[in-house]
Amino acid sequence: MDTLRPQDLKLAVLGGGQLGKMLLEAASDWNIECHVLDPDPECSCAHLAHHFVCGSFSDFDTVYAFGKNADRITIEIEHVNTDALRQLKKEGKRIFPDPDILDIIKDKGKQKLFYEDNEIPTASFMLLDNADELRELISEQKLNFPFVQKSCTAGYDGKGVKIVRGPQDAKDLLEGEHLVEDLVDVEKELAVIVARNADGDTMSYPPVEMEFHPEANLVEFLLAPAHVSDTVAAEATRIAIKTIEAFQMEGILAVEMFLTKKGEILVNEVAPRPHNSGHHTIEANYTSQYQQLLRCIFGIPLGSTATRTVAVMVNILGAEGYTGDAQYAGLQACLQQEGVYVHLYGKKKTKPFRKMGHATIVHQDAKKARALAAVIKDTIKVIS
Amino acid sequence: MDTLRPQDLKLAVLGGGQLGKMLLEAASDWNIECHVLDPDPECSCAHLAHHFVCGSFSDFDTVYAFGKNADRITIEIEHVNTDALRQLKKEGKRIFPDPDILDIIKDKGKQKLFYEDNEIPTASFMLLDNADELRELISEQKLNFPFVQKSCTAGYDGKGVKIVRGPQDAKDLLEGEHLVEDLVDVEKELAVIVARNADGDTMSYPPVEMEFHPEANLVEFLLAPAHVSDTVAAEATRIAIKTIEAFQMEGILAVEMFLTKKGEILVNEVAPRPHNSGHHTIEANYTSQYQQLLRCIFGIPLGSTATRTVAVMVNILGAEGYTGDAQYAGLQACLQQEGVYVHLYGKKKTKPFRKMGHATIVHQDAKKARALAAVIKDTIKVIS
Repeated sequence: MDTLRPQDLKLAVLGGGQLGKMLLEAASDWNIECHVLDPDPECSCAHLAHHFVCGSFSDFDTVYAFGKNADRITIEIEHVNTDALRQLKKEGKRIFPDPDILDIIKDKGKQKLFYEDNEIPTASFMLLDNADELRELISEQKLNFPFVQKSCTAGYDGKGVKIVRGPQDAKDLLEGEHLVEDLVDVEKELAVIVARNADGDTMSYPPVEMEFHPEANLVEFLLAPAHVSDTVAAEATRIAIKTIEAFQMEGILAVEMFLTKKGEILVNEVAPRPHNSGHHTIEANYTSQYQQLLRCIFGIPLGSTATRTVAVMVNILGAEGYTGDAQYAGLQACLQQEGVYVHLYGKKKTKPFRKMGHATIVHQDAKKARALAAVIKDTIKVIS
Repeated sequence: MDTLRPQDLKLAVLGGGQLGKMLLEAASDWNIECHVLDPDPECSCAHLAHHFVCGSFSDFDTVYAFGKNADRITIEIEHVNTDALRQLKKEGKRIFPDPDILDIIKDKGKQKLFYEDNEIPTASFMLLDNADELRELISEQKLNFPFVQKSCTAGYDGKGVKIVRGPQDAKDLLEGEHLVEDLVDVEKELAVIVARNADGDTMSYPPVEMEFHPEANLVEFLLAPAHVSDTVAAEATRIAIKTIEAFQMEGILAVEMFLTKKGEILVNEVAPRPHNSGHHTIEANYTSQYQQLLRCIFGIPLGSTATRTVAVMVNILGAEGYTGDAQYAGLQACLQQEGVYVHLYGKKKTKPFRKMGHATIVHQDAKKARALAAVIKDTIKVIS
């Protein structure tokens, strides 16, 4: 479409959390009419959407009825009813990403098999049907400790993952279908967000580096770009592009990787949507990950992913010891600093480690950005 | 307030046009609950506001009832019912800007007298009650041609302004209360946006330079920062700060100025709200004019106004020859270029020269930004 009519700019989004919120904020620049489906009437997107539908995105009928309203549909969370999306696709709707890709990614076992089939480097693994099978392998001493157990379908934000360090951990395993994989000797955790459009053009953001919160297993600081050699950055980028091409996916894919102490790069997992590791692109890159997804969806050429400024992103998590209606302490002190951008997600309730917002710190100097990020992290507190 | 509670972050906005839209977009980052009043149910803000009220912002009862909903009230257009705002102020509401300041600024005659009283440089002028008085002065040869006639209360976006070049123009004068002022020999038109908070802190953006569309009398290109000497920039900044301090205003003030061929700087007019001459600050400065206003309103320290990158802003106006439902031609071609940010205001109907959106072009090199802006201007067309 060479001339855009307002009626062409209509989008249905499954999920109304913070990723949806930032997608809607980006969509506002082009006045895209957004419809959002979420079970929580107080979700981040409820007031921002042109039309908000309160309902379950895992229910066939709800998703199907909701998807009928727009020609283009996207998601901000993987755990949606893909059967309904497949039906909508049959009826001519365009779905970003394709429901078949979602089904692979929603299941960590299928995801790992996909990497194997497509020669995408990943830690060696084994698929198991239940915890009993694993206990048997352990008792037969067929596994080397330590290893990682990952639930195929129950994992999200570090949940459904267990490190098994020795036979003593065998009593407390994850039940159900799962995979076990080598515990990688990680030098750094990297992520590359890559976009691919209907023409098969790809564009990847510079790799970023993640520092995790030791307890909550959530990203605490994100350094953009990653402090790695050009060779490592190029290899991470090559793997990310190879991955999105293997999926033949249209949209954006966040590829999370381990850089091992030996210098190998292994894909850990992917998310076929805007991702925590790309929040900084709002202020730090020419095109944000949110706008890039909109470009894929609406057939607008992919935008430059070049870095405008070095950035550090820090998640604003619910403080320990506070559960209830959220309040923000120290916000003013943070906003006094040049180059500090605070995004609050508008979640009513806080609880320890809940993602309540993030701050992006942009600076000419990477070290100063990192130092300021540490100050910001210690200054802002989400309490109740 | 050192700890912000969500209920503190509530704002009522009079007017739902593009300035309101961009204010709401900025407010979304901090999850500020925005209520908007506008007579047009299809205005730019209608779907973005938490609560939209369709009604007249010039009607006392409507404004008063609307303003009751929030402790803090702002405007995106001057022509609102200031009596209602004064009543709300008496009842403890905080109004940005103060209704008394609005009353001065809404009336170009009062505005000029204010400059005179406060020794703010402005073109010499004379206040007249009606066109007959002016015709008399002309017939008595008491005025030197050319001069400018400006309606005291009917002017907006270049309307209500008339250049009188000789006695032949005397038949077709603006009626009603007006002022006449010297036609300034303009070298450049500059603007400085300045913010002032409750503590009396001020922060000004680097001066920008405007190129006007020859027919529509609307800004066509805006160059940020202005291509002027450091001395001129410092003097323009000094005058802008002097002006906001003279008003004792809390909020943001756009001060439009003439740089004369003799090198004088004269204040032309001011707008006590976000302004067209500050759209570029979204992408080009550390703090956008919209966020800066929110900082004033919510007692958050003023943000850095430093430039992140040189920028050129181009208004996207309705193309000549098209009136009706808006469509956007050439948008894709524009968005293919690095550093081009398009903002569409979501106005349903286009007409020649109507402000339908704007594009900001950021670039390391000012000349390249200007050249690209010219391409963008010729590429994007709002048709019907």
